[in-house]
Amino acid sequence: MADFEKYRILPFIKKENDIKNIDKADWPVLASEIRDFLVRSISETGGHLGSNLGVVELTMALHLSLDLPSDKIIFDVGHQSYTHKILTGRKEGFDNLRRYGGMSGFPKRAESPCDCFNTGHSSTSLSAALGMVKARELAGEKNTIVAVIGDGSLTGGMAYEALDNMSKLESNLIIIVNDNDMSISENVGGMSQYLNDIRTKESYLDLKDSIYLSLAKTKSGEGLAEKIRAIKSGIKQLVIPGMYFENMGITYLGPVNGHDINAMMQAIKEAKRVKKAVIIHAVTKKGKGYGPAENHPARFHGAEPFEIETGIPKNIRTKANYTDVFSTVMCKIAEDNKSVVGITAAMAEGTGFKRFRNKYPDRFFDVGIAEEHAVTFAAGMAVGGFIPVVAIYSSFIQRAYDQILHDVCLQQLPVVFAIDRAGIVGSDGETHQGIFDLSFLSSIPGMTLMAPKNKWELADMLKYAIRLKKPVAIRYPRGTAYDGLQDYRARIETGRAEIIYDEPDKKKGVCLVAVGSMVKTAEAVRDMLKEKGIKVSLINARFVKPFDKETISEAAKNTKVLVTMEENVITGGFGEQVLEELNDRGITHEHFINISIPDRFVEHGNCDILKKVVGIDADTVFKKITDVLK
Amino acid sequence: MADFEKYRILPFIKKENDIKNIDKADWPVLASEIRDFLVRSISETGGHLGSNLGVVELTMALHLSLDLPSDKIIFDVGHQSYTHKILTGRKEGFDNLRRYGGMSGFPKRAESPCDCFNTGHSSTSLSAALGMVKARELAGEKNTIVAVIGDGSLTGGMAYEALDNMSKLESNLIIIVNDNDMSISENVGGMSQYLNDIRTKESYLDLKDSIYLSLAKTKSGEGLAEKIRAIKSGIKQLVIPGMYFENMGITYLGPVNGHDINAMMQAIKEAKRVKKAVIIHAVTKKGKGYGPAENHPARFHGAEPFEIETGIPKNIRTKANYTDVFSTVMCKIAEDNKSVVGITAAMAEGTGFKRFRNKYPDRFFDVGIAEEHAVTFAAGMAVGGFIPVVAIYSSFIQRAYDQILHDVCLQQLPVVFAIDRAGIVGSDGETHQGIFDLSFLSSIPGMTLMAPKNKWELADMLKYAIRLKKPVAIRYPRGTAYDGLQDYRARIETGRAEIIYDEPDKKKGVCLVAVGSMVKTAEAVRDMLKEKGIKVSLINARFVKPFDKETISEAAKNTKVLVTMEENVITGGFGEQVLEELNDRGITHEHFINISIPDRFVEHGNCDILKKVVGIDADTVFKKITDVLK
Repeated sequence: MADFEKYRILPFIKKENDIKNIDKADWPVLASEIRDFLVRSISETGGHLGSNLGVVELTMALHLSLDLPSDKIIFDVGHQSYTHKILTGRKEGFDNLRRYGGMSGFPKRAESPCDCFNTGHSSTSLSAALGMVKARELAGEKNTIVAVIGDGSLTGGMAYEALDNMSKLESNLIIIVNDNDMSISENVGGMSQYLNDIRTKESYLDLKDSIYLSLAKTKSGEGLAEKIRAIKSGIKQLVIPGMYFENMGITYLGPVNGHDINAMMQAIKEAKRVKKAVIIHAVTKKGKGYGPAENHPARFHGAEPFEIETGIPKNIRTKANYTDVFSTVMCKIAEDNKSVVGITAAMAEGTGFKRFRNKYPDRFFDVGIAEEHAVTFAAGMAVGGFIPVVAIYSSFIQRAYDQILHDVCLQQLPVVFAIDRAGIVGSDGETHQGIFDLSFLSSIPGMTLMAPKNKWELADMLKYAIRLKKPVAIRYPRGTAYDGLQDYRARIETGRAEIIYDEPDKKKGVCLVAVGSMVKTAEAVRDMLKEKGIKVSLINARFVKPFDKETISEAAKNTKVLVTMEENVITGGFGEQVLEELNDRGITHEHFINISIPDRFVEHGNCDILKKVVGIDADTVFKKITDVLK
Repeated sequence: MADFEKYRILPFIKKENDIKNIDKADWPVLASEIRDFLVRSISETGGHLGSNLGVVELTMALHLSLDLPSDKIIFDVGHQSYTHKILTGRKEGFDNLRRYGGMSGFPKRAESPCDCFNTGHSSTSLSAALGMVKARELAGEKNTIVAVIGDGSLTGGMAYEALDNMSKLESNLIIIVNDNDMSISENVGGMSQYLNDIRTKESYLDLKDSIYLSLAKTKSGEGLAEKIRAIKSGIKQLVIPGMYFENMGITYLGPVNGHDINAMMQAIKEAKRVKKAVIIHAVTKKGKGYGPAENHPARFHGAEPFEIETGIPKNIRTKANYTDVFSTVMCKIAEDNKSVVGITAAMAEGTGFKRFRNKYPDRFFDVGIAEEHAVTFAAGMAVGGFIPVVAIYSSFIQRAYDQILHDVCLQQLPVVFAIDRAGIVGSDGETHQGIFDLSFLSSIPGMTLMAPKNKWELADMLKYAIRLKKPVAIRYPRGTAYDGLQDYRARIETGRAEIIYDEPDKKKGVCLVAVGSMVKTAEAVRDMLKEKGIKVSLINARFVKPFDKETISEAAKNTKVLVTMEENVITGGFGEQVLEELNDRGITHEHFINISIPDRFVEHGNCDILKKVVGIDADTVFKKITDVLK
């Protein structure tokens, strides 16, 4: 339980707008107490730290300037909404932050009327805000609508689509660009450079100099055209603060120090007067006020519980996770094959591409939070003779469904998709669960789709995928890589499953056909069944598309209960496809059990708890099978 | 067969680079002959006319300046590649343009080595081009890579993602912005306005005036700071040609008259020298040279066969299509319910929203080619209390899969998706077939998914969807709306199918469970089976999600052959879901036939031919059933 008594101001914040009763002189105290509270809380529970420490004053300024819940704040991505949660009466929720049944780490409409829009994926806030503004116009209401978006999220195309649509807006929409020159990885791209140029003001000074020089040389009327050309040419090389946005019809204010509450409030006040879309360019520091987070922004993006003094994680990992395996194997593959290049969407660290980047900087491309571009860019490189490996988390690659289908698979280009965080991801919750990829990728003709049972198989599959010269996706889960079954390492072959245990028994036998992470679960289930004296075959599916129709059909013929197991929603998943194939072949099976995630979103919480909740844990599977056998 | 003898220059164009042998003085003749040929050909076969007439000279200039196929041209969207096809030796292909087995209306790698990248969906060219440039850099090659992109396609977010990634490019990449101030609908947004400002040059003139005035008032050194502020403030209100792009680190050349071959060649020559990304802003006229196409750009975007003299379609439609029904019903609904608003992505005409737009301009939003934004913008409006109807073609809404899942369904917001062109679309071919939506939408929890059997049911479903106050999608096909079964109009209820004919016969009966467009096919199949004396039940599924588990299970129990029928790929579609449900209920069925599109992309051609090819036509279904009954 958090101890609020040690704080002087924080205890007075019990609901939205309470901050307005705090004496102005105490604002810095409150900011400091919030920071202390966040560091202490998150050191216990884990969570997003750096981004939240960066927006303490910015959020306070918003709450001091707005009237919630009638005014609306949309937090892009949403992992920076902790101060907002504190200021709207949810500080006690931090005891169970991101735990099952506890408070979400993201804004949730179900959690508070002050959370007006659920977020999780990047770059949605401007579209949502514009929608709300248009609704406000039509309804004749007068509230203030603010989107808070990081410079990283501005690399996402849909943010631009929204900006493009705001150009003719004739009523107020406030966009706070929280510019910390840092998405999760180091930021990339023209917009980032542009914001940086404004921030450092050097270009602006150049502009002054340039115009000064031109003016100094001018005698009225004489050679004017030449001078204008010189000025124009000079200007074209320069940056005028906000010119980019002004060209789009959006008013620009800034840059403003995002840690200066008064300056931010002044900017918000000015912005409210503008009868169109207006950007406040706030400059902040990620991790502000906590040394380890300031110095290691990537590590403190989404942190595990840590020691406050040092910032070092409390639980040091001793076993490799799949991301580590990917990291190691990709460097090895790249050494042997110069055609292999790496692509990620602002997740060089998260996907394990950091070592590759350091070793092969020319062959590595971080495109920013731009999954659509990442995929079609890969298609372009494939046309140019290279084999791109695109590493993106499962839930984020949902955004590139069309590009995978239309730009890669239609042309059968050799692009390898390394899909990390596939399956239940845990504490980030429903926006981040990677539980749809087997379905949406299976629907695409010409896709080859694999999932490894253990760490060695991920290595083998990556090597195989590179050689295949076709569109391939490999999906693997978050967390520790399974290191069991190490002796089972049959050669990978497209559409061929791996029979691990073969115990046919038509009368009362069970055959488990498991996909990827579920092979480990299947082993546990098998052990439990064996204790009951039941014969259990275990097939590692390996391929979801094309799956091994022969092997699975044979197994179905030779067992009483066929069980498919996958960490994916039921609809459109592996099990349904297997069932369809059996039907198509006219194979009658006495019992077919489809173990998969039911048709629902899966909330946040510990992965093991969530697996029980959705019924894909070993106990539940065991029970379902024994129920059938009774 | 096209008659090439009437042309003086065109016959000499037999393969790529032949244009370089044409005397410069004859270039205008060739341009004129190409236009004449295109108008004549397309008046016979139908096809994209306006966009192709607009880029005749632009394409000629490219072919005169480049060396194909080693140099690469990527046509964004690709429907403007007809002149390119002519200049690369494919003019004979126009006899069978977009017909089954004939030439595609889009660039196809399989069709010519001069087609380096397949396109169809908008805004992919810049990503692909950048990928090819990076591949060229790594391979140490020296060819020229050009993307040709319309101003409409620049409203798509992924084009911006690519631009953002080009900012630090240190080798040449040429982007030709084909600016005809016209995507398919009238263009929208800040970028469009910006290009327009450049094109009209007025702002540029203003800039000159502004600087002139400032300069004229200046005495060296005196009040300089004031003057600079005045100039800066003036500049912020103005447009400097290309400043927007220059701010992104991209060189800007233009505007250039896109119909002036020499000017375009000069611009390309200059652009080739730039060691970074460079935009040539070419101004063209859609439909150029053919009056009806110049005057009715939307009608001649994708034209049916027409009379050359008048531009009037040869086959006047006498029956309403689903788009017409949508158009009429939406206006009616909007009259009764002021909360209903309309949203489309650059397809006001195509989706039937034109009447709505004219009648309720304040409640209609065309967001440009920006499907992602369209969906999340709708989510924002829904939060604001409105009921948005988002009308987007099936193949284009693939791009918003993540937004539908993450921004609409996770929050259970009342957004209605009107998905036109669902199923086989015909001549546009594989990039445009709407054959995946039942799969990818079914995979999303909280989605309600319907398909109407006939035109009255579309009306009923739209009205029902508005009342439902949840995420709903209604998918319906291109072409004439079915007007049979008009007496079957039972009240719509979520998850309830409609039993049209109930003829249970456990021993030799057939039950057809058809989705949407397939109900008509099912009727035909039923008639054929009835002639054989077979009892045939017919269920109109109505809902694919949640589908009617009770009714369909009962039907399965009471017939020998259960047949599901859908115009969608098999994987993740309706049939697999039904089979899974039957299995889950332990319902044994003697024969289950899943009529759906096999796991493959479907090429271009006449819809009836394609349905036979993929096996979802009445004859094939009849045969499959009778084979089973034998």
